[in-house]
Amino acid sequence: MRNIKVILQYEGTRYQGWQRQDSTGNTIQGKLETLLTKMCGKKVEVNGSGRTDSGVHAFGQVANFHIGTDKTPREIMDYMNAYLPEDIAVIHAEEVPERFHSRLNAKGKTYLYRVLNSDVPHIFDRRYVYVLPDALDTDAMRRGAEVLCGTHDYRAFTSNKRSKKSTVRTVDSIDVERCGDEVRFTFKGDGFLYHMVRIMVGTLLEAGMHKRDVEQIKGLFDAGTREDTGFLAPAVGLTLVEVRYQ
Amino acid sequence: MRNIKVILQYEGTRYQGWQRQDSTGNTIQGKLETLLTKMCGKKVEVNGSGRTDSGVHAFGQVANFHIGTDKTPREIMDYMNAYLPEDIAVIHAEEVPERFHSRLNAKGKTYLYRVLNSDVPHIFDRRYVYVLPDALDTDAMRRGAEVLCGTHDYRAFTSNKRSKKSTVRTVDSIDVERCGDEVRFTFKGDGFLYHMVRIMVGTLLEAGMHKRDVEQIKGLFDAGTREDTGFLAPAVGLTLVEVRYQ
Repeated sequence: MRNIKVILQYEGTRYQGWQRQDSTGNTIQGKLETLLTKMCGKKVEVNGSGRTDSGVHAFGQVANFHIGTDKTPREIMDYMNAYLPEDIAVIHAEEVPERFHSRLNAKGKTYLYRVLNSDVPHIFDRRYVYVLPDALDTDAMRRGAEVLCGTHDYRAFTSNKRSKKSTVRTVDSIDVERCGDEVRFTFKGDGFLYHMVRIMVGTLLEAGMHKRDVEQIKGLFDAGTREDTGFLAPAVGLTLVEVRYQ
Repeated sequence: MRNIKVILQYEGTRYQGWQRQDSTGNTIQGKLETLLTKMCGKKVEVNGSGRTDSGVHAFGQVANFHIGTDKTPREIMDYMNAYLPEDIAVIHAEEVPERFHSRLNAKGKTYLYRVLNSDVPHIFDRRYVYVLPDALDTDAMRRGAEVLCGTHDYRAFTSNKRSKKSTVRTVDSIDVERCGDEVRFTFKGDGFLYHMVRIMVGTLLEAGMHKRDVEQIKGLFDAGTREDTGFLAPAVGLTLVEVRYQ
């Protein structure tokens, strides 16, 4: 059995997220496992670096799987691209040590969130941006972004209430850039909780609309609950850009 | 009656080009005329700066129409965007002098042609690039592009054999840029014949694959016919970027 690591791109629009579901359900993991199982004649399980939600895109999702095959990584990649639908692609494949695990070994991730800050439609990016025409104060969002960085308990920034796992994470940087009528948020961190990026975006957008200020955001870590943080920004604007392993 | 000029964006994928067809036919001009006729309660005719072929995109197509309405240009634009499908948008509207005609007054146009020069798919741009994995010599294409510029009789570079109109055009510049695994051709000129940009792209790509050289391209203007010029590059890679009026 060989361990193959792949880098994947997908447009999340048509899918119910990364994670395989039991019976029906159109998922990225499900598509990949069906394909590789067919290729090998044996059941193949695919590990992703993490789940992406329904509608979320990936520019550089990482996954790995153990398979018994004589094919080279490049041949596996070409086989997959020949059979995958046009909104999923393998852009890199390599053989890795047996113990490599795309989720457990991940050291950091980068997410991009794109907001079209205009009431004029943008045809070509319509599947990748969240449209919010309200006036947005970029400086206010930058001040908020600074406060959201660091090592904190981000429990108020997740929709997952049941988990008993640690909700402490380190966010290395949040860049807020305005490019014409688009606002781009780039998040780098060691890992993100369920819905965490989208709730941080919602919180920063509310700061941009002057509905909350830096002091209020500072208080969210200690005393805050999900009710105190911002709205859940829609999946359409979110892209997993990169997963880092060192 | 007021004369309204609009700038349009559209993704050509789903459409049979710009030009209205008699009965059936899903066209951009047809969509716009149906919508404006409904808005005014009277038949409205829309003039485009030129036709785009089936599958060709527009970043800045220009059109104008005469209508009797009390709405401001911005209100007309918002009305249109509310009813247009998600792959067509009006991004600008203004009232212009009665004699303005988007085609007759056009002084120049810019087209972009994008080639994905890779055998690895690119999910996010798949609707806007022509995929050609063959090795492409950028310098050879640049030398060919230089030869194709100037004022010439471009009759060998059009699919239209019947027209008795002049086939002399001026191409101001053809930029050939490589950005990673993408090759971008940008054409600026006073006007382009039917299929002219796509045939020039096909000719330059053949130069890039060393199937023709600069000397051969030089000879195409005087002695050449359509049989001597390059293949018709697919519509998917072509975008009308801009129409200039001064």
